Amino acid sequence: MPLPQTHRIAIVKEPGGPEAISIVERDLPPLAGDEVLIRTAACGVNKPDTFERMGFYPPPPGAPEGLGLEAAGTVEAVGTAVRRFKPGDRVCALVTGGGYSDFVIARAGSTLPVPDDVDLQAAAGLPETVFTVWANVFEAGALKPGETLLVQGGAGGIGTTAIQMGKAAGAKVIATAGSAEKCALCTQLGADRAVNYREEDFAETVRAEGGADVILDMVGGPYVQKHIDIANHRGRIVQIAFLQGSRVEVDLMRLMLKQLTLTGSTLRARPDAEKARLAAAIEETVWPWLTDGRLRPEVHQTFRLDEAAKAHALIDSGAHSGKLLLIP
Amino acid sequence: MPLPQTHRIAIVKEPGGPEAISIVERDLPPLAGDEVLIRTAACGVNKPDTFERMGFYPPPPGAPEGLGLEAAGTVEAVGTAVRRFKPGDRVCALVTGGGYSDFVIARAGSTLPVPDDVDLQAAAGLPETVFTVWANVFEAGALKPGETLLVQGGAGGIGTTAIQMGKAAGAKVIATAGSAEKCALCTQLGADRAVNYREEDFAETVRAEGGADVILDMVGGPYVQKHIDIANHRGRIVQIAFLQGSRVEVDLMRLMLKQLTLTGSTLRARPDAEKARLAAAIEETVWPWLTDGRLRPEVHQTFRLDEAAKAHALIDSGAHSGKLLLIP
Repeated sequence: MPLPQTHRIAIVKEPGGPEAISIVERDLPPLAGDEVLIRTAACGVNKPDTFERMGFYPPPPGAPEGLGLEAAGTVEAVGTAVRRFKPGDRVCALVTGGGYSDFVIARAGSTLPVPDDVDLQAAAGLPETVFTVWANVFEAGALKPGETLLVQGGAGGIGTTAIQMGKAAGAKVIATAGSAEKCALCTQLGADRAVNYREEDFAETVRAEGGADVILDMVGGPYVQKHIDIANHRGRIVQIAFLQGSRVEVDLMRLMLKQLTLTGSTLRARPDAEKARLAAAIEETVWPWLTDGRLRPEVHQTFRLDEAAKAHALIDSGAHSGKLLLIP
Repeated sequence: MPLPQTHRIAIVKEPGGPEAISIVERDLPPLAGDEVLIRTAACGVNKPDTFERMGFYPPPPGAPEGLGLEAAGTVEAVGTAVRRFKPGDRVCALVTGGGYSDFVIARAGSTLPVPDDVDLQAAAGLPETVFTVWANVFEAGALKPGETLLVQGGAGGIGTTAIQMGKAAGAKVIATAGSAEKCALCTQLGADRAVNYREEDFAETVRAEGGADVILDMVGGPYVQKHIDIANHRGRIVQIAFLQGSRVEVDLMRLMLKQLTLTGSTLRARPDAEKARLAAAIEETVWPWLTDGRLRPEVHQTFRLDEAAKAHALIDSGAHSGKLLLIP
């Protein structure tokens, strides 16, 4: 079967609202030796995609053109150096761009097999959140069994994944969310306690629950001080975004006295070699949780690829829980 | 030889200036099973002692009465469970109080042998700074050979120790100090670059030198943002005090983007078992540097025990470099 010559991607000509996205046809770039061409079953939509659309999150140098950080599908072709995958394999991949597409090019090192019993479309929602939670909660945060993990934004893509991975690893999980329905989803996914932050002071609840050892936060702003206050001795606070701002006024005395660690990271700009290292660790520790059912991609809604703007409007509204997918 | 019944200690009746210190005679408490009684050759004076004197740094519960966090001398007696030390041994020890004394009681786990070729009086200046630098630069900061260590306050007790330990471990060391003389001491101790912070912007210098991987800081205040700005990718910033305040206004964006770690610790309140663990690691890695001359206690001046107030006045003035010792 001849390889496709073109693919459809989602580009943003002028930063703006969801309507700024257009689907265009482009020549498919040649496949490098360590790359895999994936015939896409579904593409994951992530919050950072909306920042990129608004012009706040420029793609790293060398990133493929177009929105989208993850996809799943079947291998269509592999580069000359790729031994691990062959055409027809079911895979999902983390990419630095061009994920909203019918044909996605990924590094083999950022590509993982999709286990037989996992839905291929749903698997498109795994890479960005699983890599993020692994790198931040398990590596930077060094979560250990028996510890307490606080997950801010528990009903979002990252949150639903963090709750499940935290529970699978034997931690107690407290999650926050902004409605009773979202809190119900958090507990259904395994959270030991869900806090509706619109009705309860999450800091008081966490304190009453014995504090938190690892805190996964994308809020920032006034939350930073609260996290310093409620973290346990040697607790780790990990920032993956600052939705309420990164400029904060904090008192760091308790950070020193409790030997806390305040850190954070982003995923996209990491070098390929490091993503490959993360992928190997994830395949070893997290992939078995997919097979035994402890981790299920939580899909909120699917859209056609040419409805990417609708998916973005939903993400912007914050009304979703779990992941949104685009089907080419 | 009968054991002494009393010892002289330095107490503070009302918090205040150096004159608030008085030397009093007290009954020597009975020796617990895991304790060592040291006939003191010298006692180290540390900055935290001045905070305690002013009422800002209350001793942890159960601490022995009196100022002073370290001493060196010969073992006078050992508790029934102590196998490691015997009367006559040359030792130095970290204590949670009562260090300014002619007879100091220490936990065996916080006591280390003084190598033959190290002056016993000078060894009194080792425990507080070596434990602090080890715990913060090497454990929390995880300094590796070839990395760059920035030492704030390079000419102080902690600073002079951090410079030498950093160099001994194969790091490049940049140190700051407040005068040309102090800078000269820093380079004499091995610092690759000394910055007179009154005349140079240390942040610019560190940037020109390629940034810092580990930053040991006791200043806080406006330094926190500067450290976030000049730290290298995955750099570690470790706070051991906040002489210019712990309430800071910072932008944490670069902390996330560069995957920095902001952490800190204090030494005194750590449990005995942890101090014993630190002592074992120090004996293994740092003690050989004492024997081969890579680490020498930098003694600025000695005082008689009953001149403790004079030593405090000198620390308060900031005019010293290296350690001050009291000789009973």
